[in-house]
Amino acid sequence: MSEDDADDATDEFDAVVARARERVDPDPDERRRLREVADRLVERAETAATERCPDADVMQVGSSARSTWVSGDRDVDVFVRFPPNLERETLETYGLEVGHDTVPDGHEEYAEHPYVKGEVEGFDVDVVPCYRLADATEIQSAVDRTPFHNQYLLERLDDDLAADVRLTKGFMKGIGVYGSDLRTRGFSGYLTELLVCEYGGFRPLLEAAVDWQPPVELDPEAHGQETFSDPLVVIDPTDPERNVAAVLSSENVARFTHYAREFLADPDVSFFEPRDPDPLTESELRAHLERRQTTPIAVRFDAPDLVPDQLYPQLYKSLSGITQGLDDRGFHVFRGTTYANETAIVFAELAVDTLPAIERHQGPPVHVSGHAGGFYAAYADDDHTYGPFLEGSRYVAERERSFTTAREYLESDRLFDVGLGAHVESALEDDYEVLVGEEVRDLLGEFGPELRRYFEPRP
Amino acid sequence: MSEDDADDATDEFDAVVARARERVDPDPDERRRLREVADRLVERAETAATERCPDADVMQVGSSARSTWVSGDRDVDVFVRFPPNLERETLETYGLEVGHDTVPDGHEEYAEHPYVKGEVEGFDVDVVPCYRLADATEIQSAVDRTPFHNQYLLERLDDDLAADVRLTKGFMKGIGVYGSDLRTRGFSGYLTELLVCEYGGFRPLLEAAVDWQPPVELDPEAHGQETFSDPLVVIDPTDPERNVAAVLSSENVARFTHYAREFLADPDVSFFEPRDPDPLTESELRAHLERRQTTPIAVRFDAPDLVPDQLYPQLYKSLSGITQGLDDRGFHVFRGTTYANETAIVFAELAVDTLPAIERHQGPPVHVSGHAGGFYAAYADDDHTYGPFLEGSRYVAERERSFTTAREYLESDRLFDVGLGAHVESALEDDYEVLVGEEVRDLLGEFGPELRRYFEPRP
Repeated sequence: MSEDDADDATDEFDAVVARARERVDPDPDERRRLREVADRLVERAETAATERCPDADVMQVGSSARSTWVSGDRDVDVFVRFPPNLERETLETYGLEVGHDTVPDGHEEYAEHPYVKGEVEGFDVDVVPCYRLADATEIQSAVDRTPFHNQYLLERLDDDLAADVRLTKGFMKGIGVYGSDLRTRGFSGYLTELLVCEYGGFRPLLEAAVDWQPPVELDPEAHGQETFSDPLVVIDPTDPERNVAAVLSSENVARFTHYAREFLADPDVSFFEPRDPDPLTESELRAHLERRQTTPIAVRFDAPDLVPDQLYPQLYKSLSGITQGLDDRGFHVFRGTTYANETAIVFAELAVDTLPAIERHQGPPVHVSGHAGGFYAAYADDDHTYGPFLEGSRYVAERERSFTTAREYLESDRLFDVGLGAHVESALEDDYEVLVGEEVRDLLGEFGPELRRYFEPRP
Repeated sequence: MSEDDADDATDEFDAVVARARERVDPDPDERRRLREVADRLVERAETAATERCPDADVMQVGSSARSTWVSGDRDVDVFVRFPPNLERETLETYGLEVGHDTVPDGHEEYAEHPYVKGEVEGFDVDVVPCYRLADATEIQSAVDRTPFHNQYLLERLDDDLAADVRLTKGFMKGIGVYGSDLRTRGFSGYLTELLVCEYGGFRPLLEAAVDWQPPVELDPEAHGQETFSDPLVVIDPTDPERNVAAVLSSENVARFTHYAREFLADPDVSFFEPRDPDPLTESELRAHLERRQTTPIAVRFDAPDLVPDQLYPQLYKSLSGITQGLDDRGFHVFRGTTYANETAIVFAELAVDTLPAIERHQGPPVHVSGHAGGFYAAYADDDHTYGPFLEGSRYVAERERSFTTAREYLESDRLFDVGLGAHVESALEDDYEVLVGEEVRDLLGEFGPELRRYFEPRP
């Protein structure tokens, strides 16, 4: 590349990034409004907390406390810290009371402590009680760690780095890798901020990610001692035994590398725009099936009433179990996925959906006398079985196959032999529906956008 | 088992064996007739040999020389031994001349030496020249070993053992494991005689075979030093470096064990009757296909003009290559076989004969930067391909499949990518026909009995 070309590339990168910053940076009005609401919430929480425990204090944490939120995000996190000698039960009682005083319309949720969550003036507010500790190594539950994270980042994020955190979050949202929930298994906010600090900005992070060779290991405080088997390991600066990236999937690490490479080669502001597909139409679905000549199947059931972090691991387990069950019976799964709205589906395309009426049943070697004799005797006079005959030194019989179509298998009780997850299993026990071939058009109403993602796959 | 039951079982065994002996033992007329013909042949050969080389001598070898032939066999083997200092070229010339003098209508064949083969008074006669050596370790070619084998067995086979060799051969013929040709890959005559000597008769051989745990190793002269990987190893008493059972397949070892077990449990003279099935009828074929719901396919071509020992290894190689080729492309082979008469066929049943229009193409991990970038670039803008997308850390594309039916594959040039054997490959290059589904009824005329064996498989 000539110097001029390199300059042009840098100019293009900078121009695209400047436009992206306009999207991700909150404008002064948005900042002011959030500041005002947050201040009011902290004040209310302080009053409610010190009334109950004079030694309590309150701090705002999370991205809204560090100017690392992306325009449009509306999360305010208020942590109420109690002295470490307070009994846990009392802390929980006080915590909920303070929460309800601070967020009058809030409801209680349960992480490691119970806490209050609700909407205040258009913002999503969490009021979370924790212990105020001298050192992160003393923490009693995960939430106690949050103030330390907040402190660590506040000391390191100047305005430029905070701006690059926003930019990085916008990029990650655009390419679909942002969020450490168990559906996404992507990058958490804390992880993103650490990476931007560690590499020194958005561009150096992308340039590093292009060359990532998992496992990639970072240890900002050089205090890690444990060994992790995750594709990305970032030792928590406040806890040497914790990998901040533990939930991140290898697919999302690869995805980040892929899009970093693509973006650096050809920067475009579209990378910052999350894919939001139109529903697939019935004629498009028909065209895909005609072109692919696979057999789509779906198992549809009422979505269990669980939070996504509980639901999706069970759905992924069900997907894996059902595709394995199909494969084991010779119904070769081409590709599959799972989605949930009101109903949930395990969806798969089969390369093979119909099999012969017989199946091979391999017996023992002839030389294993007891077992071999039993096998031979069991089938020798069975009119429903071909053989036994010999293949090499083993007996083989050809017997009737239990299921000659994928539908028969999916509609049978044998489906419950695979790993499904407890709540999915209960839901299937209540009722489920099997759709095969063109019948999957019934899914377009509820899962139209998801089916477009499926049939128009991208990295 | 009570003593009475044991006696009954022995009585039944003995009664069945007595009837079997009637089948396998040549009657006095047959013996006399063979003796007379053999004597005349040896005399003719001696005259012709000593005319050319006064130091030559002649010996009758093989089963007819040891009373181990089964009634109906009509082989007479005459070996002409020349002194070891005779030049090989001269030996071959003399050998053929003696052969033609002995078997006037004979023709020349080629093993390690050329020799003369032909019919005399209803017997199949081989006249084979070899060197007369003091010790088997000095042999120059395999035929030189034969006189030593003959000598070894003559010294050990008394009338009872010779009778049990005949019985054992009859049993082996009945169950289909007799013959060391490369189609059968069974027990040779010499191997059978050694086994009967070693175990001491028919019944002890069966009783031992029931408990065989391959590899089974016998070394009658306790002089073996080499290690063999064959399922049955019988060190040649005349050559410590040779396994007499080298050609025997593990399937035939298992088959012998199976039928030994069955015969001892329930002796019946039918074990001595080779299976000779009627041709499968068209309605039977249709019933099998209806019941099995597989898709039969056949590749049919003119049988190459080769002796069976050359043809069958090539057919087996072709069967293996073609079934592997089908499996590799997703056309799952259920079972297959190969037969030859005027035409030859590779025959298989498919569990899957039609596949989707697309196939998965797994690319490199995203982190292998050069290779991954190339893969992504190659497919990203290809309208005929779905993806690339990510599965774990790898790119995957779904591209058009070359062959969506087994017929398309079998009729394509790609069939020649698999191992076929030189003469089968040439035959296919000339012409071949692919039969699918009900079209295989065209094979009933030529391969009717073989197809009954296929669709009524037994050990």
